[in-house]
Amino acid sequence: MKKKLKVGFIGVGNRGQSLMSNLGFVENTVVTAVCDLCESRVAECVKQCTEKYGVECSGFTDYRELIDKADIDAVIIASTWLTHIPTAVYAMKKGIYVGMEVGPAGSVDECRRLVHAHEETGTHLFLLENCCWGRYEMFVLNLIRKGMLGELIYLAGAYQHDCRELLYKEYSGERPFAERYLHKIRNMEGYPTHELAPLAKYIGVNAGNRFMTLSASSTKARGFQKYYKETTGKDFEGIYRQGDVVNTLITCACGETITLTYDTSLPRPYSRGLRVQGTNGLWMEDNHSVYIEGRSPKDAWEKDDDYLTEFDHPLWKKSLEEGVKGGHGGMDYLMLEAFCYYARNNMRPPLDVYDAASYISISCLVEQSLSLGGTAISIPDFTDGKWVIKRAADENDYDVNV
Amino acid sequence: MKKKLKVGFIGVGNRGQSLMSNLGFVENTVVTAVCDLCESRVAECVKQCTEKYGVECSGFTDYRELIDKADIDAVIIASTWLTHIPTAVYAMKKGIYVGMEVGPAGSVDECRRLVHAHEETGTHLFLLENCCWGRYEMFVLNLIRKGMLGELIYLAGAYQHDCRELLYKEYSGERPFAERYLHKIRNMEGYPTHELAPLAKYIGVNAGNRFMTLSASSTKARGFQKYYKETTGKDFEGIYRQGDVVNTLITCACGETITLTYDTSLPRPYSRGLRVQGTNGLWMEDNHSVYIEGRSPKDAWEKDDDYLTEFDHPLWKKSLEEGVKGGHGGMDYLMLEAFCYYARNNMRPPLDVYDAASYISISCLVEQSLSLGGTAISIPDFTDGKWVIKRAADENDYDVNV
Repeated sequence: MKKKLKVGFIGVGNRGQSLMSNLGFVENTVVTAVCDLCESRVAECVKQCTEKYGVECSGFTDYRELIDKADIDAVIIASTWLTHIPTAVYAMKKGIYVGMEVGPAGSVDECRRLVHAHEETGTHLFLLENCCWGRYEMFVLNLIRKGMLGELIYLAGAYQHDCRELLYKEYSGERPFAERYLHKIRNMEGYPTHELAPLAKYIGVNAGNRFMTLSASSTKARGFQKYYKETTGKDFEGIYRQGDVVNTLITCACGETITLTYDTSLPRPYSRGLRVQGTNGLWMEDNHSVYIEGRSPKDAWEKDDDYLTEFDHPLWKKSLEEGVKGGHGGMDYLMLEAFCYYARNNMRPPLDVYDAASYISISCLVEQSLSLGGTAISIPDFTDGKWVIKRAADENDYDVNV
Repeated sequence: MKKKLKVGFIGVGNRGQSLMSNLGFVENTVVTAVCDLCESRVAECVKQCTEKYGVECSGFTDYRELIDKADIDAVIIASTWLTHIPTAVYAMKKGIYVGMEVGPAGSVDECRRLVHAHEETGTHLFLLENCCWGRYEMFVLNLIRKGMLGELIYLAGAYQHDCRELLYKEYSGERPFAERYLHKIRNMEGYPTHELAPLAKYIGVNAGNRFMTLSASSTKARGFQKYYKETTGKDFEGIYRQGDVVNTLITCACGETITLTYDTSLPRPYSRGLRVQGTNGLWMEDNHSVYIEGRSPKDAWEKDDDYLTEFDHPLWKKSLEEGVKGGHGGMDYLMLEAFCYYARNNMRPPLDVYDAASYISISCLVEQSLSLGGTAISIPDFTDGKWVIKRAADENDYDVNV
């Protein structure tokens, strides 16, 4: 039996606890330390983990103490967005393999600091973008690997999630930490990674390709204000600068375009609005349709169900056979399984520090473009030119590199 | 019985003949003149019209002669894209009510000339954008008028039409006039009006609102080259600068965003990809779905069929009762009925000269943005500030102003 991977958690709010619970399904792991600013959360998690794993779990309220003192091989950072990078940098400097939750970057510069910490120490950072392990995202990865879509040309994605109730609870104090509402003082691509990470992987960004430029547009902000008025009967008088819908055009070095839509304050069903289009055909999430030239009836969509049967990713086939585990339809568990595999072997992660910096900095770069009237701006190359080197996918079912 | 409206046709190729045939369903009209560079087409159309209407139809090969000499109240221009505006300007200067087919503008300046011709003469120009009279476009117009979508925030549309075979036939000489292929020397929003016109009408562009800025991106060009290779076995060595997919972000004075997608050289089913989203909900073409807050089940799409029954536009209800007439699913006929109504009464058209200039110039403005690396550029205000004046929809079922 392999040695257990000892994992520490920094930030055990909603997301941290959910990840901790999902990690419980991953074999040969043990949670040996937890940290949170909230002492009662720490106490509760320490108790749960000690019971579950039969190993003493240590509790901390200062992340530096956890990193300095705890007996851990890897750390999962699921704290607030603005603390992700300082925490990750500290852990990398101590040689701890990092799993970092997603979110918008606070600034472009802090993304550079993340990269520098990796380059100075050689410690890896694994961006915990669960959507890369989603069933449809992996199905499309498989379609691409099998050449079904041809040469990729155009990719679209979105974070379309009606967050008005959540925002209202944050604004009114019903939720303890107003992370989302706090960011409404900014107008940006507020949450780019769920759609951008899988799309970027499909076209080898930072591994033979890169983001070159972006331009963005923003609508007025009306959705939350209307919701507030309807909920309270009063006019909203707080600060709210985030446009209801922000659109971003990203051009890539190899000639592809990626478009993003951020849409979180209007009433609508959830959708990541994925579209992946190549010289042989395309797949679209919203109508769950595929069109493959020479296979689909001419000019007619096919539902993606049949293709799913044929092109389900091996990891998902296995997962469905064995029974899907954990939250968000199973992708959280699969991501954590991947994380533990890579951490245990101290391997370069499927989503590495360059990917993390490239994806999360889009938030602030869009803000720059918007503040300049939507002009096109250069996207930093966090690899300092190393993006020209291609990257073969590792020989395991976890890797999401194309 | 009302006096018959005497209509001349300039350009009787595919589109002109199709419009002529559809016009045959409109009561109290008569085609009294046709013009085309191709003499055999003129002879054939003269014969057909003289027989159909029992009135002598005159034939011309020079549009100026038709305008100067023929007995007409109105003229429909369905010639090549590059001749639309010079022809329209000539007709307006002679006081002939103009119906002008759509297409990309040749330049931004020629759009100004169109506007000036109207302002100098008072003659009206009706942009013949058939999609404004499409069933779904009018259904959505009705949804908006009834307040179902709330305040509009974000609108998307597309011209997604696999034109590779058409382009190939033009390139290889199988089709007589290579209008589409000829334009592939440019990289632009090649055909903006089908989606843009209805969307612009929904938010009152040029009548209380206007397009302010745009930025654009283009992918590489691969689709046609691959098609050519597969069709001929040879590498394509002609000129082809048009990117496979061009995306455009348009910001509007009242805070809305419109996004356009131009996608004509990759294999795919046809779609105008419409999405119309407001503070109460949204409608999407691709999955034929509606979500209306408080009416739809929470967070779940509804198919638009039920809404169609309830919110079909009166013009379409009537059309379906009486039997749909003519091409493109009936919208061509309805547009021509509208055209004849407005021409007969010499009224300001639903899509007027300012709309025409604003919509078709987008093609060249996108080219400007692309040639400047996708930067945001100002969109000209062809109304010279008059856009601040709102416009009430006329009291008839033809008007598509909101």
